[in-house]
Formats: sequence, structure tokens, C-alpha cells
Amino acid sequence: MMENNKLQHYALTDVAQLKVHGRTTESRSPLTLFWTGSAVELNVTGTELWIEVDSKYDVYEPWISVLINDVVVSRQMLVHGRYWVCIFRGMNESVTKNVRIVKDTQAMSGDPGCALQINALKSDGAFQLVEDRPYKVEFIGDSITSGEGAIGAQAEEDWIPMWFSAIQNYTAMTAEALHADYRVISQSGWGVMTSWDNNPNANIPQYYDQVCGLLTGEMNEALGAHNPQDFNAWQPDVVVVNLGSNDGGAFQTPEWIDPNTGVTYKQRLNADGTYHEEDVAKFEQAAYQFLIQLRKNNTKAHIVWAYGMLGFPMMPAIYRAVDTYMKETGDRNVSVIQLPNTTSETVGARTHPGMLSHKRAAETLTEHLKGILHHS
Amino acid sequence: MMENNKLQHYALTDVAQLKVHGRTTESRSPLTLFWTGSAVELNVTGTELWIEVDSKYDVYEPWISVLINDVVVSRQMLVHGRYWVCIFRGMNESVTKNVRIVKDTQAMSGDPGCALQINALKSDGAFQLVEDRPYKVEFIGDSITSGEGAIGAQAEEDWIPMWFSAIQNYTAMTAEALHADYRVISQSGWGVMTSWDNNPNANIPQYYDQVCGLLTGEMNEALGAHNPQDFNAWQPDVVVVNLGSNDGGAFQTPEWIDPNTGVTYKQRLNADGTYHEEDVAKFEQAAYQFLIQLRKNNTKAHIVWAYGMLGFPMMPAIYRAVDTYMKETGDRNVSVIQLPNTTSETVGARTHPGMLSHKRAAETLTEHLKGILHHS
Amino acid sequence: MMENNKLQHYALTDVAQLKVHGRTTESRSPLTLFWTGSAVELNVTGTELWIEVDSKYDVYEPWISVLINDVVVSRQMLVHGRYWVCIFRGMNESVTKNVRIVKDTQAMSGDPGCALQINALKSDGAFQLVEDRPYKVEFIGDSITSGEGAIGAQAEEDWIPMWFSAIQNYTAMTAEALHADYRVISQSGWGVMTSWDNNPNANIPQYYDQVCGLLTGEMNEALGAHNPQDFNAWQPDVVVVNLGSNDGGAFQTPEWIDPNTGVTYKQRLNADGTYHEEDVAKFEQAAYQFLIQLRKNNTKAHIVWAYGMLGFPMMPAIYRAVDTYMKETGDRNVSVIQLPNTTSETVGARTHPGMLSHKRAAETLTEHLKGILHHS
Amino acid sequence: MMENNKLQHYALTDVAQLKVHGRTTESRSPLTLFWTGSAVELNVTGTELWIEVDSKYDVYEPWISVLINDVVVSRQMLVHGRYWVCIFRGMNESVTKNVRIVKDTQAMSGDPGCALQINALKSDGAFQLVEDRPYKVEFIGDSITSGEGAIGAQAEEDWIPMWFSAIQNYTAMTAEALHADYRVISQSGWGVMTSWDNNPNANIPQYYDQVCGLLTGEMNEALGAHNPQDFNAWQPDVVVVNLGSNDGGAFQTPEWIDPNTGVTYKQRLNADGTYHEEDVAKFEQAAYQFLIQLRKNNTKAHIVWAYGMLGFPMMPAIYRAVDTYMKETGDRNVSVIQLPNTTSETVGARTHPGMLSHKRAAETLTEHLKGILHHS
Repeated sequence: MMENNKLQHYALTDVAQLKVHGRTTESRSPLTLFWTGSAVELNVTGTELWIEVDSKYDVYEPWISVLINDVVVSRQMLVHGRYWVCIFRGMNESVTKNVRIVKDTQAMSGDPGCALQINALKSDGAFQLVEDRPYKVEFIGDSITSGEGAIGAQAEEDWIPMWFSAIQNYTAMTAEALHADYRVISQSGWGVMTSWDNNPNANIPQYYDQVCGLLTGEMNEALGAHNPQDFNAWQPDVVVVNLGSNDGGAFQTPEWIDPNTGVTYKQRLNADGTYHEEDVAKFEQAAYQFLIQLRKNNTKAHIVWAYGMLGFPMMPAIYRAVDTYMKETGDRNVSVIQLPNTTSETVGARTHPGMLSHKRAAETLTEHLKGILHHS
Repeated sequence: MMENNKLQHYALTDVAQLKVHGRTTESRSPLTLFWTGSAVELNVTGTELWIEVDSKYDVYEPWISVLINDVVVSRQMLVHGRYWVCIFRGMNESVTKNVRIVKDTQAMSGDPGCALQINALKSDGAFQLVEDRPYKVEFIGDSITSGEGAIGAQAEEDWIPMWFSAIQNYTAMTAEALHADYRVISQSGWGVMTSWDNNPNANIPQYYDQVCGLLTGEMNEALGAHNPQDFNAWQPDVVVVNLGSNDGGAFQTPEWIDPNTGVTYKQRLNADGTYHEEDVAKFEQAAYQFLIQLRKNNTKAHIVWAYGMLGFPMMPAIYRAVDTYMKETGDRNVSVIQLPNTTSETVGARTHPGMLSHKRAAETLTEHLKGILHHS
Repeated sequence: MMENNKLQHYALTDVAQLKVHGRTTESRSPLTLFWTGSAVELNVTGTELWIEVDSKYDVYEPWISVLINDVVVSRQMLVHGRYWVCIFRGMNESVTKNVRIVKDTQAMSGDPGCALQINALKSDGAFQLVEDRPYKVEFIGDSITSGEGAIGAQAEEDWIPMWFSAIQNYTAMTAEALHADYRVISQSGWGVMTSWDNNPNANIPQYYDQVCGLLTGEMNEALGAHNPQDFNAWQPDVVVVNLGSNDGGAFQTPEWIDPNTGVTYKQRLNADGTYHEEDVAKFEQAAYQFLIQLRKNNTKAHIVWAYGMLGFPMMPAIYRAVDTYMKETGDRNVSVIQLPNTTSETVGARTHPGMLSHKRAAETLTEHLKGILHHS
Repeated sequence: MMENNKLQHYALTDVAQLKVHGRTTESRSPLTLFWTGSAVELNVTGTELWIEVDSKYDVYEPWISVLINDVVVSRQMLVHGRYWVCIFRGMNESVTKNVRIVKDTQAMSGDPGCALQINALKSDGAFQLVEDRPYKVEFIGDSITSGEGAIGAQAEEDWIPMWFSAIQNYTAMTAEALHADYRVISQSGWGVMTSWDNNPNANIPQYYDQVCGLLTGEMNEALGAHNPQDFNAWQPDVVVVNLGSNDGGAFQTPEWIDPNTGVTYKQRLNADGTYHEEDVAKFEQAAYQFLIQLRKNNTKAHIVWAYGMLGFPMMPAIYRAVDTYMKETGDRNVSVIQLPNTTSETVGARTHPGMLSHKRAAETLTEHLKGILHHS
């Protein structure tokens, strides 16, 4: 191989032009990409670019996608270790390339050993400023928003990182259509109040105020995952909440018993298959409280509860929670929208929304948000 | 990371069930994947699979795509060296996975140092037979068939492996639609008679009878690239010839001067912009001879000349060549079909056919071939 | 012209096999088609078929579409008068043709002189039974459901029958996808409580219990438009209510003054542009009452409130109304679904949903109803 | 009905702004629309427009489509007789409407009694100039170009006018995409040399120099159908020849015996199913002669032979004929293009191309013609 002797080594702190997407700490040596859709973005000249990654995990390995000039050219598993990944080589040195390296897999609450870090860059080019896009959008959700099943054959049933995609995902598609920078806060199986299996600890609001509070283990704590999130540093124009699917699921699944306390948790069904009124009320209360919490931290954002990609049994309760919130607070900058349900034609792996379902959801959501952003 | 202690190491020669796609030599230790679309295919149980690759090049690095159960889950550059690539991990050990690892980049006649080899496998599963598909198709072509520009932004202009795709390619799409095993013989810039720039050495027929004769350098010779192709071992049902675009281009480009002999080569235009009759006749003669050569080596195949994805100025000459061939030989098992021209909506990188153009070509070609295969 | 001497004249009462779609009276001599989507359907052999229509109007002429074997072959204005319309001629006499003649225009509350009647048939064939489809669906709505603007250029602004279509309409598309017989009750500009311009008399519930009670004038009364509807004769499996768009519009338009009483009606906006709470409550009450009324008359039907094709500002109120209804009655056989909003790409004439918007709405609604019908 | 007392009666000769599409004679009192796609076009203000038609036939009735501002609003059979057809009513009188009334059915060589004439107009508006479109295109073809089967269910088998469409037709679609005025010369079953059943009199070239020479009977002769065509009055930029499908069919069908002379005609197959060389040569000669004839009459037009919508077995012969023509005449303004073959998904009634097949053909042809028109 012809060696490229012109490559220069850069610590991330050397590259002021580096743009980081997604919630993280102040640290850049190294930079931790916690959430799905988190990314580094560069405008760079030169013939060649490498990044040094550090991929750690006990169970669930991280994956990344690489976009050159907005086109995905590579998607790969990052096996354990610290090593260099070549992003491009052999290109015209005088032309500026826009490069995004995107984390394709969610923060893994189930794997305390999992972390993806970026240490350094190598290139023979020069770095240039990446402009902010006109809007900022934050997406909050569950497996749907994590892109679980958005890639892979319909027959796939394993719960593994390979079937997660941040790209074939309504979040990325909506952000692109809106010309928006965006962030994602999401966890498969979690809800506003409980997980799909009635675990009351598996809810997003509880950790929303931290950088990535749902991560566990000493390593992640040391990386700052539990630090308070600095909301002032990035105030979104829109917050999309796509939660409720697992809260709905909890009505259909067995009780969850807290292994520490022995206390039992269960969202109950009535004999006729409808939801028990008291338990739905608890969900509504949780949703209401989450809206309060979101508004506290995102003062100017339009908050839209976008729900329905895997059915919409919680929609009445969501509407009631939003009604109550708006009436009690006088806050009018909130809306609810139903996203297109997934069908046999649009389903992906693991009976989750496939790429086509994400595409339709993005179209619906984009249209809704355009109306709001262009009037505000 | 939790180590997987059950992984077993396999030389390729240990795995009788391994299916190899694409022309290559008998060697399996290692196996060389010469052409784009060449692949190894496995049916395998177990939780985890790795392959050991050996990627060599002076200039143009190989890329691969990985398909699990017919869905592309990964595409990556293979940087220089011999190392293990993890194909999957964490899967249900008792379920059989169909895995294809496909070479995404063409044989590189311009880089004598370029070779992609597969040395070994590691898995904790068992290998199972991969059935032959009902049909066999061979595709012969130029940059179109090599998938140049089938991936990447329209603005891309660099001639680099990153913009080549064996997957977003009418070859793979047609083979999938026909349920066919397939092979590809292709080279960017080359023709039936000359390259796009009048080089008479850059033609496919000259090397067709060798395994991968257009490769240069001692290494490739040692790997058996110049060995005679064993046609008996794989007799296609269909041979698709997608050549002529560069032969047409040669009329529009400057003369080529042989650096060794000083002899000049040029397909001439008349003053009115039409093709010089003598030079078109040379092309026709080359096309005629190639048909003779194809039939000699592929006795039962339907041969279809499929042309037109980047315009179709050579179509009259192709029809004349095929006419002459059919008349002189009495061989009726030949046809000509025009593929859909690439438009501003379907163009990809480097002003070559994009994914949409490949898709339309595949639809047209598939329909044509279904008619032929179902009647033969 | 060669005369067809074999044509026989049939009063509709002679043709027991005639299937009538849409609410109407018992009369068949003549038969009145009141609503859009109302139709006569025939299975008939023979070479030729004519129907005798009687088209009356002061202002708004009726239009019909003709479907042969489920394909629209003709659409035409019916100018004033009683005359024969040829449906087909020259066909193979021994083959059975399925024929539907569909009223393309809504009941015209603004034109007391408007009526479309069918008097008789002529054919040289024999009539055969038309089987009922497996499901029955009733659609209740406004201009959207009347197909206003579903045909015609986007530039069209005239309020004329030509721009109404019962065929390029989510009602027909949904019914076809579900293999359902269907009926439509709809009126442009009307709502659950008031019209778009605050007229409290222009609401569907007020007339729902009559055959076609919103028609005015002595002629229509004599035709039985004000007769009580015989609900027992046709009990739907699904009732789709697509109302609310005009009730929402009433908040944005000037007050309506009753010309007889001088009383003023107005759904009020608050200073901040939100809906006045008391007035929204009135709408909710009207929606609630309509659900009571619908259930009284349609005992077994799933009732779905399907709303959103021209925005969805009333959705919270609709959800509240349905919540209250379900809670107070214990009736669980009700749902709410948001239909895809109309976009610049899917808009039709008169800034109403175009064919593409109707198509998307039908896909969403069909998917929802399949889930319900296959579980009930 | 409220009478419109402002309607004024106009002979066609009174309306200088009337634009006539399609070959016809000089007569405007009445105007005869001979060919499919022939039309009258008007720009008109006013609330209302009527045309007086005179529809004559022994067997095959004419159909028309009405377009308002480029959208089809009506399609109807014209039963026998002379009567007024209302085109629109109730429109805004001050707005200009573009109106086209298009003959949907071909000239009927099999029905000497068939003629469609337009006698007069009635309107309360004013007529305005219709600008010529930037290009002129002439289409010459057979049943494909006549739109046979482009409307109707796939099960339809009757040969009747109802299944013909000038609108769901690649001719209209291509013309619209190119912004071209256009004419159609076409006849179901006919070819360059013979009909599908070997009748040597059923060929287009024989009648090409007359206005509509293939019509028979005294009436049509009196209407000027056999008059020489005045080519100077309308010189196209492009002539599209879509012939060959029936010439190909003649090889597969029984001989035709001239009832007058007893002479037998048959395009022969060889024992191996290939075409007899002498008979193909006759076809080539006929195609060659037709090109000579077309060029004589259309001096500046690009002539494109566009073939393949129902298979393309004659393509080699067409290429040979065009080759010979170009070589012998030096005329370079000629091309050949293969149109997309009809598939099980795009087929229409009577196993002819359906709307989707016409759409694809139009896309291919439009792309080809844009390249030519923008370079000439």
C-alpha cells in the first residue's frame, strides 16, 4: 500500500470546527456518544480522513453509519477495542467533504459496560466550520425512536444492536426534511410511566434531566452520564415525544415484582378488556408531569406528542393529559398528532416499524412541524 | 467484553458447505474474490460469525457488503491488512442465518497491488448446505455493471472505490428477481473493442477466457488471475452483455497512442458528427467475434445484449452485429434489449446510473429474461 | 345506425335483481338517488343497456359516473330533462357485466329544485342477482366526504357540481378495499353543531333520522326526503363520522344572524387565538349527542370518528366527547382516528383534498377498519 | 331549471379563436374530427358552454373526453344523432377556462357510417386566442396508439369503442410532457405492410398522404376523408412511428386470401419458429419505403421509430430498415427507440397496454425526445 505521509494527527480538542450532535458532556478527550443519532460532523478537505474510536461493551456492541455529503456510504459494527477507522481515502484534496459519523445504536441501559468514544482524527486536509441548521429538534421515545427493527429481515427476532438504525429512522428523516439539527433520547421498552412489562423504573422522565441518566455502572457514571443536562446550551425549537406504546403494553403483560422490595406493579385490564380507569389515570398523571418537566427545561419549544406507529390505544389518555396540562398551565405551545400505524407492508424486523413505516411517519410529522415552525 | 469461548476456527477448506460466487481459482486457502459481486455465502447456526480477510492494494481499497437473510446490514471499506471482521454476534444460536459477504468493488486493472482474500472463519455454530438457485446468470459489462456511481451524492466526482456498489446494482436486483445465482465480469471504461479513450487493449473479450485476466502484476498472476477459466464448472442459463457505452465514447474522445509502438488508435467521427463507417464496422466485427467467443464457452445460455443505460448510440451497430451473427451461425438463442436510459431523476454519482436507474434497468431486464427462461 | 330490435323496456319494479345503494325511499317508479355515492348496480348479460334518467334542478345539475366491472368508463353531467342514457352497447351478449351507475354529486340543500331519478331500463340481456358484499359501511361527513375538489385543477374556485366526485373519494376507495357496500350522508359546509359560518341549522345530526332531511322544497318533500329513515333495513358494520372541519371553521368566521329571529350565533376565539372554552364545550356536547343518536339507530356498528384531512384543531374536543360518551354509556365499540392531513402535493380543486389525499386517507382508514372488522 | 338567457349561438366559422387539433379538411360547418386525439380547444370566459355534435355510425359509436384546464372532467359515449352537449355551466363568468373536447376513439375503417362532427357552440362568454404550444408531434401507429384497452378491466374482451382512450394514452402523455400540439394517425390491427392477419391492404403508408384515407363509404368520401393531406399547413418537429406489432403478428396468424382475386398472403415462419428471411425482407422494404414517404412530407421532422410495448420481435428488422434508409439517403434525422414492454402489472383491457404501460412508454419517449428537441 502507498503510505499517505501527509496525514496529521488531531486531538478532538484541536479541531474547533468539529460539530457534535447529541447530548454529551463537555469532555472532548475523549468524546462520548451516548444516544442513538449522536454524531460528529465535519467539513474537511484533503484526500483522507480517519477517526479513532474506542468501543466498549459487555454484551451490546455499538454500530455506526458514515455519511459523506448526506449519503450513507458505510454502516459497520464496532468490535471491542480502540482503533482507527478510515472514513474516506483517495479523494480530491481541494474539495470540501461534509462527513457525519452517526451512532446507530441506542444508549444501552442493559449493558453497564457499553460506551462509544471518539478519541482523535487523522487527515491531510483542513477543517472548516459546520453551520448550524435553521432549526433544532429533540426526539424522545422508545424502541420506535431507537429504530429497533428499522433494518433487517421481517423474520428477525433477536434483540441485538444490528437491527437498530438511526438512519432508516423517522427522526433522521424528519430532521433532514426540516433542515434541522436534532437529538434523540430513547430507550427500547420504556415508557412515560413504566416499561412494557410494568417496571416503574423504566421511564424516561426519571432520567430526562441528566445527560444520559439511564445508563448504569461505574464506567458510565465516571463518563458523566449522570451529570445534570445543561439545557441552556441547546434549546430546541421542537420537542417530539413519541412515548406511550410501552405504557399501553403494560396493560397486556404480567405484573412486575420489585426484586428489592417485593412490591408488585401492574396496569390492570377490566374484565371486558378495557383499561382500568385508575391505572389509565396514573398514566395520564405521568404524562402530565412529563409535560411540566419538558416545559421547565425547554422554555420556547413547541412540544408535540406524536404517537401511533404501533397502534394507538393510549391516544385518548394522551389527549386528556395534554388537555389537562394546557388548561392548568395556560401553555398553548403543545399539540398531539397521530402517526401512521405500521402495516404488513411497512413492518420491519422484530415486528417493529420498518423503513417504510418510518418514512410515512416522517412525512406526517414533517408536514405538521412545518406548519408550526413557519408560524412561530 | 464477555468473551465467547465457544468460537471455533475453520479453514475454508474445512467448510464444505461454503458457497462461493463469482469466477475464481480452485484455491480456498485462501479464497480470492476477484470480481465485483463475488461473494461467499453461508447458512450457519450459532450466536456469532467472523471472517478473516486479507485486503491488499496500492491505490484502490476493496469494500464489502454483508447481507443477513437477504438484507444488507453492513457495508465497509476494508483497509489494508489481514484481520478478522465480525459478521454477527449475539444471535439465537439455534436459528439458521443465511449470510452473504459480497465484494462491492470491481477487479482493479489499474492497481496491480489490489486483491481481496478470505482466509478463515470463526463461529460457534454449525454450517449447513446452501442450495443452488434455480437459474445461473452471467453479467458482462463496464462501469455501469461495476455499479460505478450507484452510491454517493450526485456531486461526487472522484474515481474511488467508495462510489461502487455491487448491491445497488441491476445485476444483483435482476438476479434476486429471477432467483438466480450470478457472476459479474466488468471493468469501468472498457468496451467490446476499445476503452472510452480509444485504447484497444482495454476490451473485455481479450480476457474473457481467463479467470480474471485483466488484472496485472505478479501477485495477481500468482493468485491465478490469468489461469484459463473452467467454463464447464459453471454454465449459465443466461449471459447478459452490457457493453458498448465506452466503444461509443471512443468516437467522441481523442486518439490513443500506444506508448510502446507509437501507433495511434481512434474511432473517427464524420464531419457531420456521425460515426465513420469503417470504424463502426470494426466495432460490429468485434461484437460479432465476442458473440462467437461467448457461444463457444457458454453452449446452452441465452445471450442477451442489454444496452442503453447511458444512451444508446451504438444500438444500430449492435443490432447489425447480432443480425450477422445469427444469420451466419444459425444460432437463434440470442436477443437484444434496450435498457432504460438514465435521467436527471435516476442519475447517481459521477454522472453514472444511480440506484433508481439500476432499479428500472433490472425491472426491464427481469421481465425480458422471465419470458425467455420460462419458455426454454 | 343499425337499430337493435331486441331491446326490451323494463320498469325498475320489473327488475328484482336491481341493487340500490344509498338511502332512499321504497319508491322504484321512479327511484330517487338522493346522496352522493348512491347508485344502482346490475349484473346483466346482453349487448346493450340503457337507463332512463330524470334530471331536475334550478341551479346545481347532477353528475353520474358509470363503472363497468369496477372500472370507471364514463362520467357525465346530466342536463335537465328526462331521457335515455346508453350505458354500453356492442358487447358480447352471453357475458355478464357488472354495472354501477353512481351519483357523483351530493344532495343539494341549496337547490330545492334538484333531484336525480331513474325511471326505467332497456336491454337485450337478462338480469342476474348482485350479491351483497361482506360488510356494510356508512360514511357521514361534509365537503370532504362529498368529494368536493377531488376532481379538477388546483386553480378551480367555483362552487359547482363538476368538481365533486363520489369515485375519487376516500369513501369509495375504503369500501372497495374492504369489499363493503356503503352509503354516504354528507353536506359541504356542514358540521356536527354548525356550518363553517356559524349557522346552527346546518348540522347533520338534525336530519340524520330522515331519509334525506336536509333537502328543501315541496318536490323533495313529495319524493319522501323527509320520511323517517328505516334503520332496520340496513344496519351497517361500521359508521365513519368525518365531521368537525366546519365546526372548527366557525371559530374563524363571522357571526351568523338568524334572518327570522335576529338571534346571533358565533363560536368565539379567545384573545390569544385559542377556542373559547364554553363554545368548545358546546361542540363537545353536540358530538356527544350525535354519538348517542348514532348508537340508537345503529346498534351493532363500530363507530369511528375519522378526522384530520383538512387539519385537526378539533381533535382534542372530539377525543373528549368520545371519552365522555364511552364513560357515560359504557359503550366500547367506538374509536377515533386521525386521517392524513392534505398537503401541497395532495390538494385538489378549491383547496380541498385531491385524489391523492383521498387515497392516503382511504389507506389509513382501511387499515384501521380491517383491524376492527377482523376482530369483531 | 333557471334558463340562461344570455347564451349566444355561434357557428364554428364565427369563432376565429377556435383551435382544431388533428388532421381534417378545411370545412368548419361542420368540422369533422376523424382521428383519435383530434380535438377542438377553446379559451373562453362566461358561465356556460355547449357544443353541438353530430354523431353518426352503423356499428361503432364515438366517445369524447372533456378537459377543463387540463383535467379530464367528463368522458362519454356519443349516441347517434345531432344534439347539444353541455361542457360546463355555473362558472365564474369573468374567468377564462381552457377547454378541450377530445375524440377518444379512432377513425373506424370497419364502419363506413361512422363520423363525428361538431356544428356549433353556445356560450355567454367571449372567446380568446389559444396559443400554439412550442412543439408539434405526429404519432403514427396501430391499436397501441389508438389506446385500445387503455381503459377497462383486464377481463374485457369485446372489441368496442368503450375500451379506447385518447387520454390514458402515451400520445397525450408525451405531448403534455413536451408541451406539444399533436396529431395521431392510427388504426387497430394495421401495420407497415400488412395487418395482424396478413391483409396487405391494411397498412398505414397506403393512406398516409390522404386526410383520413382509410375510411370507407360515400359519406366519408364526401366529408373529404380521401382528400390529399396538406402537409405544408402543419409540419411536425417530430414524427413518432409506433408500427410493427401487427406486421410481427402476421407471421403467427393464418394466410389471408383476397376475396376479389383469390390471391393468398402470408408472412411465413421457418420450421424452427424464426421468421422467413424473404418475408422479413418484405417488411423491411415496406418500412424503408415508409421512411422515404414520411421524409418527403415532413421535411424538418425528427423521425423516431418507437416500438416494443407489446414485445419487440421486429426490432432487428426495424433497425435494418432504418440503417438502410439512413445509409442510402444520408438522412441522419432518424432514430429508433425501444419502448417498455407491457407486463402483467401494466396490462389493460383486451391484453393491450393499460394506463400504466402507456405512462411508462410516455416517460421513455419523452426523455428521448427532449434530448433531440433541445439539441435541434
